[in-house]
Amino acid sequence: MTSSTTPATDRFPVVGIIGAGQLARMMIQAAIPLGIGVRVLAEHATESAALITPNVDLGSPDDAAALRDFASRCDVVTLDHELVDLDALVAIEEAGGVVRPGATTLRYAKDKLYQRSAFQRAGLPVPDFVDAPTLDAVEAFTARHGWPVVAKSQTGGYDGRGVWVLHDLDEARALFASVADSNVALMLEQWVRIDHEIAVLVARRPGGEFVTYPAVETVQRDGICHEVIAPAPIAPEIAARARDLGEQIAALTGAVGIIATELFLVGDELLINEVATRPHNSGHFTIDGCATSQFANHLRAVLDWPLGSTDLLAPVVVMANLLGEDHASLAPRMRHALLAGAPGVHPHLYGKDVRPGRKIGHVNALGDTLDETRARAAQAAARLTGRTP
Amino acid sequence: MTSSTTPATDRFPVVGIIGAGQLARMMIQAAIPLGIGVRVLAEHATESAALITPNVDLGSPDDAAALRDFASRCDVVTLDHELVDLDALVAIEEAGGVVRPGATTLRYAKDKLYQRSAFQRAGLPVPDFVDAPTLDAVEAFTARHGWPVVAKSQTGGYDGRGVWVLHDLDEARALFASVADSNVALMLEQWVRIDHEIAVLVARRPGGEFVTYPAVETVQRDGICHEVIAPAPIAPEIAARARDLGEQIAALTGAVGIIATELFLVGDELLINEVATRPHNSGHFTIDGCATSQFANHLRAVLDWPLGSTDLLAPVVVMANLLGEDHASLAPRMRHALLAGAPGVHPHLYGKDVRPGRKIGHVNALGDTLDETRARAAQAAARLTGRTP
Repeated sequence: MTSSTTPATDRFPVVGIIGAGQLARMMIQAAIPLGIGVRVLAEHATESAALITPNVDLGSPDDAAALRDFASRCDVVTLDHELVDLDALVAIEEAGGVVRPGATTLRYAKDKLYQRSAFQRAGLPVPDFVDAPTLDAVEAFTARHGWPVVAKSQTGGYDGRGVWVLHDLDEARALFASVADSNVALMLEQWVRIDHEIAVLVARRPGGEFVTYPAVETVQRDGICHEVIAPAPIAPEIAARARDLGEQIAALTGAVGIIATELFLVGDELLINEVATRPHNSGHFTIDGCATSQFANHLRAVLDWPLGSTDLLAPVVVMANLLGEDHASLAPRMRHALLAGAPGVHPHLYGKDVRPGRKIGHVNALGDTLDETRARAAQAAARLTGRTP
Repeated sequence: MTSSTTPATDRFPVVGIIGAGQLARMMIQAAIPLGIGVRVLAEHATESAALITPNVDLGSPDDAAALRDFASRCDVVTLDHELVDLDALVAIEEAGGVVRPGATTLRYAKDKLYQRSAFQRAGLPVPDFVDAPTLDAVEAFTARHGWPVVAKSQTGGYDGRGVWVLHDLDEARALFASVADSNVALMLEQWVRIDHEIAVLVARRPGGEFVTYPAVETVQRDGICHEVIAPAPIAPEIAARARDLGEQIAALTGAVGIIATELFLVGDELLINEVATRPHNSGHFTIDGCATSQFANHLRAVLDWPLGSTDLLAPVVVMANLLGEDHASLAPRMRHALLAGAPGVHPHLYGKDVRPGRKIGHVNALGDTLDETRARAAQAAARLTGRTP
C-alpha cells in the first residue's frame, strides 16, 4: 500500500476489491480496457468475480489481518458490498492505506439510523423515523403516524431483507420477539404511499469533482429490483430535483466512487429511501446505455482519474434483472433469448449457480420508445430464465 | 471436443482461442457478460490475453499435438491470428473437432495468391496479379502495367510487412535476391492510385445468416492503420457496394465469425485489398460505437447463436490506434489523456510492453461531427502515447 493518497504514476495502479460478487465482476470488465490492475478478495474461488480473473486472494472480509494483507498488495481498496467491518477499514486507513469510499462514507450505507439522522440534520427529505429499541417505540410512533409502519434492521439488510411492513401491534410484537435473541437493532419509519421509485447515481472524485447519471425509475417486486428505466418517465423538474439530491448526498457523505441514492416519489415529493456507496443495480443499464458505465466511472473516481460522460446512448434504455427460476442453467435458452431481443439486447450473466429468486444476471435493451424497449428487455429476460409469463 | 457441430446446450460452451494477443483479449472481454467460457492457447504467460484470464494453456500454434490437446478441452476453437498450421486445423476437424472459421476459410487469409485467384474466378474486383517465382515474372508484368508494381509475400504478411512497392528493375532484383534463401514465395500486383481505403466487417453463422457493419474508412500510414472513421465519409452508393462485396466474400469463403474485407477506392471503383477471417483492427470502433461489438458477434457466430444489431450508437465514431513511442509506460499520461477526450473517449489498452511503433491499444470516440470527433480521438491518443504532434 502506498502511503500517499495518489497511486504511483509510472505504472498502472492496482485496485483491490473486497468481495467477489457481480459488482466486482463488472468492475473487472471495466478495468481491463483501462489498463487498471485488479485484485479481488474472495471467500470462495467459485464466486462471480473470482471466476474471471487470475488475481484472486481467498479470505474473509471480517478478518482484519486478511484485509490488511490484501490492502498491502493494492494501491487503492474499494468494495463490492457493505458487509465489511468498519474498524478494519479504519485500521487500514490509519496505516496509510487508501480505502475508497472510506470508512466515514461507508457508515452512511451500513448504519441506517446514523444515515437518517445525519440527512435529517442536513435538511434532506427523509421519511419520519425513530430508533426502536423496544416495543414501546412502536406504540409512540404509530400514535403519531398510524398503521402500517415500516420496521428496518439498522444494519445489514438488502434486497428487501431486513425490512418489514407492520400492520398492527400483533405483527410488531412478533417481530420484536423474533429478533430478541439476535443482535438486530430495529428502527421505525413512516410508511408512505409510493407512486414511483427513483434512483440517481453520482460518481465523485476525492477532490469533489463529480458526474451525475440520468435519474432512473426502478420497478420493484417484493423488495427486489426487477426493472430499471432510463431516463425515469417523470417530469423533468422532478428528475432535476432527484439528481440534485443525489449530488447533495454525495457531497455530504464524502463519497468517492459511485454513490447510489434511492428515492420514493410520493405525489410531487421526493423522499430518500436508501443509499449505497458503490456501483448499484440501478446503474447496470449504464454498461450498454451510457457513454461511460458506472463501473468505469467508479474505477476512475477511486483512482482520482478524470470522469467520463454520463450521456445516454439511446432515447430509452431498459434493464431487466434475471432472477433464477427452477432451471439449473440459463445455457439452453440463450439462443432463444437473443432472438427475442432483436434488434438488440445485451445479456450480462454473473456466472452464478441458478437458485430460485437469486439475481443471476441482467439484460439491457436500447430503443426509441419506452413500451417497445421495455417489452423487448422483459421478453428476453423471461426467455432466458425460463419464466412463464 | 464434442463430435457434433453444435456445442452442448445444458451448460455454457467453452470457446478456445488459438493465440493470446489483443484480439483474444477483447474476445474474452466480450465473452464474460455472455456467460461463455474462454480458454486461450498462449505462447507466453505475459501475452495480452493471458494476463486477464485464469484459463491459459501454454503451447505453440505450430505444434499439432498442442493444438489437438487444446481443442479437446474446448467446444469450438477460433483464432486470434492466421499464423496457424492449416494441416493441424484440418486434423482437428477430421477428428470431429469444430474449428471456426475452418481451414478452408482460413486459407483465403493465409494464401494471397489462392485468394486472388479464387476471387478473380468468382468475378470479384481485384487488382491484376501474377505469381512471381522468378524475376522474369516482373519483367512480363511491368511490360503490361508499367512501374511501380507491388510485390507481396504470398503468406505471412501483415501491417505492411511482406508488401513492397518496387519502382524499377533494380529494386525488384534486390528484393528477389533478399528472399532467395528463404521460403518466401512472391506475387505481383498492379499498383493503383488509392483515393480511400475502406473496410467492411461481416459476422456470419455456419448456416449462412449474417449481419454487416457500416463500411468504414481506414487511414493508413506506412502500411499501419492509424485511424478508422465510421461510417466511411463516402457516397452511400459506394458504401452499399462495399458492404455487398464484403457479404459476397463472406459467402464465397464460407466464413464463420467475423470476416473483414479491406478495399481500395480508386475513383468510383472498389478493388479488394486484403481479407482477414477474424475480428480486425478496422472493427475496434464497434466496442463502444455499435449496438453489438465485433467481438461479441464473432463469439455469437462461432457458437451459432443469433447475431446482434450492428447499428451505430452515434452519428460518428472514430478509432485511433495507440502506437508505442519512446515512453516505457502509458500510465503517467492516463489522466491527461482522459481529460483530452472530454466529453468522452474510451481507451482500450492491451497490457503490452511499449515498443516504438507497436500497437499497444486504441481509443474510441463518439460524436456528432467528423472533424470534432476525429480531433478528440487523435488528441487523446497523442496524449496517451506521449507523441508530440
